[in-house]
Amino acid sequence: MQVIRSIAELRAWRKQAASVAFVPTMGNLHAGHIALVNEAHQHAAHVVVSIFVNRLQFGQGEDFDAYPRTFDDDCAKLEAAGVDVLFFPLEAELYPHVRQSFNVEPPHLQDELCGAFRPGHFRGVATVVTKLFNIVEPDFACFGKKDYQQLAIIRGMVEDLNSPVQLVPVDTGRADDGLALSSRNGYLTSEERAEAPRLYRNLTLMREALLSGDSDYAALETRARQDLEAHGWRVDYVEVRQAQTLEIAHAGEKNLVVLVAARLGKTRLIDNVEVAR
Amino acid sequence: MQVIRSIAELRAWRKQAASVAFVPTMGNLHAGHIALVNEAHQHAAHVVVSIFVNRLQFGQGEDFDAYPRTFDDDCAKLEAAGVDVLFFPLEAELYPHVRQSFNVEPPHLQDELCGAFRPGHFRGVATVVTKLFNIVEPDFACFGKKDYQQLAIIRGMVEDLNSPVQLVPVDTGRADDGLALSSRNGYLTSEERAEAPRLYRNLTLMREALLSGDSDYAALETRARQDLEAHGWRVDYVEVRQAQTLEIAHAGEKNLVVLVAARLGKTRLIDNVEVAR
Repeated sequence: MQVIRSIAELRAWRKQAASVAFVPTMGNLHAGHIALVNEAHQHAAHVVVSIFVNRLQFGQGEDFDAYPRTFDDDCAKLEAAGVDVLFFPLEAELYPHVRQSFNVEPPHLQDELCGAFRPGHFRGVATVVTKLFNIVEPDFACFGKKDYQQLAIIRGMVEDLNSPVQLVPVDTGRADDGLALSSRNGYLTSEERAEAPRLYRNLTLMREALLSGDSDYAALETRARQDLEAHGWRVDYVEVRQAQTLEIAHAGEKNLVVLVAARLGKTRLIDNVEVAR
Repeated sequence: MQVIRSIAELRAWRKQAASVAFVPTMGNLHAGHIALVNEAHQHAAHVVVSIFVNRLQFGQGEDFDAYPRTFDDDCAKLEAAGVDVLFFPLEAELYPHVRQSFNVEPPHLQDELCGAFRPGHFRGVATVVTKLFNIVEPDFACFGKKDYQQLAIIRGMVEDLNSPVQLVPVDTGRADDGLALSSRNGYLTSEERAEAPRLYRNLTLMREALLSGDSDYAALETRARQDLEAHGWRVDYVEVRQAQTLEIAHAGEKNLVVLVAARLGKTRLIDNVEVAR
């Protein structure tokens, strides 16, 4: 595996690569990321992974400085997964003027769901993904469904700005007890880790209710919220939405997604399940 | 010359083209555009020109509907200039949802100079150029210095979003009497056309003064404004700026540009001269 730190060197490598599938990450890799890499291998001759903790998508008071940097472990995992190139730029390489002047501005969806609790987050995501796409020029890019709203925003961006990249959504990896794999799981105490699967259990219950024809979304949302709060969670949101657009779902909607974000101690976890009925 | 109307067809053509230089236009082509095409030929094996009157960059009350559409004439000129592909999309091809949801948001410079008189104009330019770059995937793109602020904004965007496109700035084409070539010159009555070269004459006088060491920018700006107003012009701005960034120039600045925008009857004309001293 080649580790490339400069944009110029990455572009030079890209010129001779026939086809590329790309997996952008912030490092601290787990089995969920490796599933993205494995999927990437199905689509192109070469796989490029980036590790870049993107300051632009962290809000004030969020965990930018504390975000785990585990480069050596990450390298070993990517090497074992057969990655061709790891793009690992310094911050000054992507943000030479410190301040990013041009931003990709997503529509109103950026201010809903997670966006309501993380102002500017999705602008930062859309902007850095645009930059990385322009540098890597991938034919395919793999994104996990765990970050469902992020995927919806990037899908909208690719379509709306005509990016020449084909997106590949990848199912969420889970621990045996159902907890969605996430870098932030490492923040959990052992008690919190034992409690954490309740998030997915509530989503599963909601999916069963929706599949059995229940369309009282508000009641389902309230029930899940109450169960979580009764067990010490602070719930940012539990919402049933239309699966593709993430717009408010009407009662008869067939393609749904249930999204949840909630805090256990100091750790904010998100998860979701799709429901096609 | 191949005329391509669909994005898919353009992408298919692009796959087999070795290198591409691109000239985006809104049509109603004149010798200034053909100079861009001639320059484009110097850089790549193939030249792609687009004609698209971009609603997004016209403000309310501006001349979107009245903007001249002269397709047959344009085609003949491009054919004669050896263009390989004319990309001529329907509006529904570039804006299938009518409303553009994701926008490329330029920094404060978008609200100054022309931007102060055309709110949203440069957002619309940055967004459509991003879309066209993503569709055409050019190696080079030629822009005229006549639209100097546009060039500065696109230069900033390419750098800041890491677009894999090399910009080629092209000098302003002029009529024998100095008037900058522009599609909007066609709006002028014959009296206005006779008066119009005063714009460039004032820029030339300012350049001479600056080259001779005059750094009282405000006095030079006022003198030009007064001369234009005395001859029936309504002046939007006359400004001396730093040439690369378009920031306010300090007295000792060596790389200057003088920019002017003024209205003669119903027609708004812009022009500029660079001054390296």
